Amino acid sequence: LNSRLPAVGTTVFTRMSALAVQAQAVNLGQGFPDFACERSLIQAVSDAMQADFNQYPMMSGAPVLRQAIVSKIVALYGHQYDVEREITVTAGATQALTTAILCCVHPGDEVIVIEPSYDSYVPAITLSGGVPVLVQMETGAGGYSVPWHKVAAAVTPRTRLIIINTPHNPTGSVLRASDLQALADIVRGSDILLLSDEVYEHMVYDGARHESVCRYPELAARAFVVSSFGKTYHVTGWKVGYVAAPASLMAEFRKVHQYNVFTVNTPMQHGIAAYMADPQPYLALPAFYQRKRDLFRAGLRDTRFELLPADGTYFQCVRYDKISGQTEAEFAEWLTTEIKVAAIPVSAFYLQGKESGIVRFCFAKQDATLTLALERLQKI
Amino acid sequence: LNSRLPAVGTTVFTRMSALAVQAQAVNLGQGFPDFACERSLIQAVSDAMQADFNQYPMMSGAPVLRQAIVSKIVALYGHQYDVEREITVTAGATQALTTAILCCVHPGDEVIVIEPSYDSYVPAITLSGGVPVLVQMETGAGGYSVPWHKVAAAVTPRTRLIIINTPHNPTGSVLRASDLQALADIVRGSDILLLSDEVYEHMVYDGARHESVCRYPELAARAFVVSSFGKTYHVTGWKVGYVAAPASLMAEFRKVHQYNVFTVNTPMQHGIAAYMADPQPYLALPAFYQRKRDLFRAGLRDTRFELLPADGTYFQCVRYDKISGQTEAEFAEWLTTEIKVAAIPVSAFYLQGKESGIVRFCFAKQDATLTLALERLQKI
Ligand SMILES: CSCCC(=O)C(=O)O
Ligand SMILES: CSCCC(=O)C(=O)O
Repeated sequence: LNSRLPAVGTTVFTRMSALAVQAQAVNLGQGFPDFACERSLIQAVSDAMQADFNQYPMMSGAPVLRQAIVSKIVALYGHQYDVEREITVTAGATQALTTAILCCVHPGDEVIVIEPSYDSYVPAITLSGGVPVLVQMETGAGGYSVPWHKVAAAVTPRTRLIIINTPHNPTGSVLRASDLQALADIVRGSDILLLSDEVYEHMVYDGARHESVCRYPELAARAFVVSSFGKTYHVTGWKVGYVAAPASLMAEFRKVHQYNVFTVNTPMQHGIAAYMADPQPYLALPAFYQRKRDLFRAGLRDTRFELLPADGTYFQCVRYDKISGQTEAEFAEWLTTEIKVAAIPVSAFYLQGKESGIVRFCFAKQDATLTLALERLQKI
Repeated sequence: LNSRLPAVGTTVFTRMSALAVQAQAVNLGQGFPDFACERSLIQAVSDAMQADFNQYPMMSGAPVLRQAIVSKIVALYGHQYDVEREITVTAGATQALTTAILCCVHPGDEVIVIEPSYDSYVPAITLSGGVPVLVQMETGAGGYSVPWHKVAAAVTPRTRLIIINTPHNPTGSVLRASDLQALADIVRGSDILLLSDEVYEHMVYDGARHESVCRYPELAARAFVVSSFGKTYHVTGWKVGYVAAPASLMAEFRKVHQYNVFTVNTPMQHGIAAYMADPQPYLALPAFYQRKRDLFRAGLRDTRFELLPADGTYFQCVRYDKISGQTEAEFAEWLTTEIKVAAIPVSAFYLQGKESGIVRFCFAKQDATLTLALERLQKI
């Protein structure tokens, strides 16, 4: 069979999670919490099932959930989306990202992707017949940053879409207001669209604020903004996310969405909507994860790993080149099988597999899990 | 924004359901039950959430569910799929269908679609850059049937895929062994793939058996076979389905799947797997729905509607051209707003909107709902 995605293998997350299970390693690879979600969230979904919310919801999503999403965005970012026409609930953020790409990228269109990048963007561009144009982040004393002059230089008349991601997976970097301004300068006056992956929106540390594209009307007017409840509410397996976009873009998104998944799990939508009435869970998230980040960083301070800044997400990147000449993939495998701590090689987030001597750990774990992992990592 | 799907509007199901709500009509349009699912199924999902099955499952689906699917297929159709490599759980059947099309149809490839057809097939083909080649079913005394000589005549060197659907939505017709033999004769020796939409597999009446592609090794060897738990277990809003295919096809399916939705709701998968341990619910389905079909047909017998055969699915098609010169869409709207019974115009299942004077009713409703609808329809 002639492949539509010849370059694609099994995702690094699947592979490293399988290896972690096989090696009985502490799994700090794939990003998911190893602790339980709140019981009241589970109860809310059970209640929705009991109340017979079990048939097709509206194609755009349950109205109560779309309303809750709009209220949250207004409260946090001050941007008012239309509940009917500008929000669509998706089967997780990956589906939102891929559907957004499929609905606006025509064969031959160019899409600017900033590397390292989440591994679904490029295959989705390839599927739509588009051409990924890669711009690499730079690393300096302050960690990873986006060289906007290179993004500007990558723009051509064929540029259809620029994909950004903040807080950023895998680097843990976050865009600042100046980044968003630089992006605005690039797209102003063009018909370039934006796809903003903000699934870690509630995980920004040290008092910084999340610079959602929703805060910038000029950018929001041309953007698909994607988020995820799985990350926010510690239920990565529930696969409910959403996309917010101006009505004209959303109309095209929904054309693809309705024939891709049609609708999204009804009781999950109702349960999440009920749970969202209280903003406390997501408001408490930065402090919750910052404590874990600090615990993890403190434990690595006297090791031979060099800590990179971790301003957002639940990922910590470390440079290991001082202690090994292996590729990142080899090093991550060695960490998993020999040290019994699984990590993700950052090279997996580059189309050409760039080697920077950096691996990513996920600290969305119980303190006991982090402590066990640290004990092992400290011995290297 | 230059549309990827310029011909696509909002699905007829969404439009007619909205109109039914607005008109306070009995909704026999969109296909979904108006009765509750079994409480033990809900309990199984609640139990899975309580047991902390809330993080990412395996990309291919929870092993327990894949095993349950394989066991069911062996028991019913005698075909042994490999649990690891040949089953993938999907976010509903629509996602399975679209992903199957996206993974194997290259730009310029031809896909044979038999009309009337479920409305997601053609947009998915368009998205992948393929060319739909339409063959229309014929209607005679025995109802709708597939003219296989026309399918054979539609095959060209560019034919990549043939899509079949049995039991068939919207016509309620089912393929017989002779149909599958005719299809086998057409594809034998070619590299044409098959996509078999069997979401109504458990709804075949009058003692007939479902001719799953899985029963025909020669066909199964080149087929994606799709089914849905939403239809079978009365939970259309849960959005869990699956695809079964030989390992070589499944490898390509998963490449697209992992970047489309990545994974499917974990607690729903575990709950359904537990519930599937008892085959009784799906074994009892033909008798359950046949009684409703017979009740509905009996009620329409002395009306001016002409009943078409309804051998499978939970749909009943009726010819109304004796009583009206309206288009099907106009007639369905009139039925909804004036008679207060919503139906779906079968013309919506034809790309060029062929008018046959036929509308579709869904009889997956409580007896009281069917009785109320019949009282209204009998008055026309
Ligand atoms: C959907 S893959 C696993 C989670 C994730 O996003 C990551 O580990 O980067
Ligand atoms: C997914 S759309 C609604 C249900 C359905 O398949 C139909 O009514 O034909």
